[in-house]
Amino acid sequence: MVPKWMTALSATLETYPESKTYALATIGENSPRVRHIVHRSFISPNGNVPLLISTTDIRSPKVSQIIPHRGQSHNAEIVWWIQEPNEQYRITGRVYILPISGHPLHSQFPAQRLAPKERENGDAAAWWEIQRIDTFDNKMGGALRASFCRPTPGSELPGGYESGREWPDTLPQSTEAERGSVDEKNVWTALNNFALMVLEPVSVDRIELSAVPNRRTCWMLAGHGVWTERILVP
Amino acid sequence: MVPKWMTALSATLETYPESKTYALATIGENSPRVRHIVHRSFISPNGNVPLLISTTDIRSPKVSQIIPHRGQSHNAEIVWWIQEPNEQYRITGRVYILPISGHPLHSQFPAQRLAPKERENGDAAAWWEIQRIDTFDNKMGGALRASFCRPTPGSELPGGYESGREWPDTLPQSTEAERGSVDEKNVWTALNNFALMVLEPVSVDRIELSAVPNRRTCWMLAGHGVWTERILVP
Repeated sequence: MVPKWMTALSATLETYPESKTYALATIGENSPRVRHIVHRSFISPNGNVPLLISTTDIRSPKVSQIIPHRGQSHNAEIVWWIQEPNEQYRITGRVYILPISGHPLHSQFPAQRLAPKERENGDAAAWWEIQRIDTFDNKMGGALRASFCRPTPGSELPGGYESGREWPDTLPQSTEAERGSVDEKNVWTALNNFALMVLEPVSVDRIELSAVPNRRTCWMLAGHGVWTERILVP
Repeated sequence: MVPKWMTALSATLETYPESKTYALATIGENSPRVRHIVHRSFISPNGNVPLLISTTDIRSPKVSQIIPHRGQSHNAEIVWWIQEPNEQYRITGRVYILPISGHPLHSQFPAQRLAPKERENGDAAAWWEIQRIDTFDNKMGGALRASFCRPTPGSELPGGYESGREWPDTLPQSTEAERGSVDEKNVWTALNNFALMVLEPVSVDRIELSAVPNRRTCWMLAGHGVWTERILVP
């Protein structure tokens, strides 16, 4: 069953489709870190816990800021501010990173638990690799695909801003690159660096600031995939 | 001297004055927490380290999520996404809470260090109380002032959404409330709950995604209030 918060969020996003960025907070070296990222899609392999899919460069500093710390109950919280209807969604949960198979972090991704129930172990990894390639090909534009061929994000750029002119500025989909071309080589480089970020929510806090009086509703995932609802003081 | 990042941010905000919310990330119970808040003003008591001023209800759960943890180098990071020019500012630093004098947390606010240099101890506290009242009176509207009279934010609302109709929906400035009126009583209640959040930045990371090639610049506060600049891979 689709959770009530998901029905509300989907309806809002349908009305305001340009609201596709949210802030992702994690902890790095014992300090809070936050950055805006772009929402790519929802995937609901098992119905009642929709997963939020975004992307990252596996070389990005944020990857080490996502690995769970000892004793930490959740490793991520996002806040999605949708300006026009004046609504805020805070979604708390765990973020998992899905890099290319063979990367040291690949084995930490709980592919089977997060894949559709009927999938067996090897099958689940393949199912997730299809989601990764599909996101690269169909949920992002050519300029963004090309950005995964840059030097390590956040590293020093000794040549200054203009040295970025040497980077490829667009890339085709993985299926469209001509065999043996520079594009094909760059697509492989990009796919090596490209990773999914998968947020598995455990609680959602919605504030509606256009409503008079303001409304605040909190949902928490109880056992068996059931979401409990509470009405709170905004 | 005004730091270069501040000149850039001010120019962007002047062009896009509606971009006045940012996400504030902190750590609560060993987990990342984040929420959107509204920027109220910059205060630069000592020139080269502009402070970012926002507000909170002192009863809000975020207050306990702001108190620094042992071994933590910074207790807050904000990310300010300015949609139209496609620019992101990440500002890392320390957040301090300034409640009404007499509140247990009041003594933790480093009033003297953050006040203009020439102020003496008692003077510095008075200087900051003026900033607090000025923000309440002049940087917020009547509906927002009234929100500080609600029951504790985040607490359960057993009567449901409609019970919010009993809360005052607007409040005058503190100087405008009629002596002995309900408004005056409510202004005092609101001012008791109203606190400033003061962010003292130590580093700023700016990404310009409209520029071709994209640009990323990082400034860090070195000794003696000097900001060092580095150009990074976006």
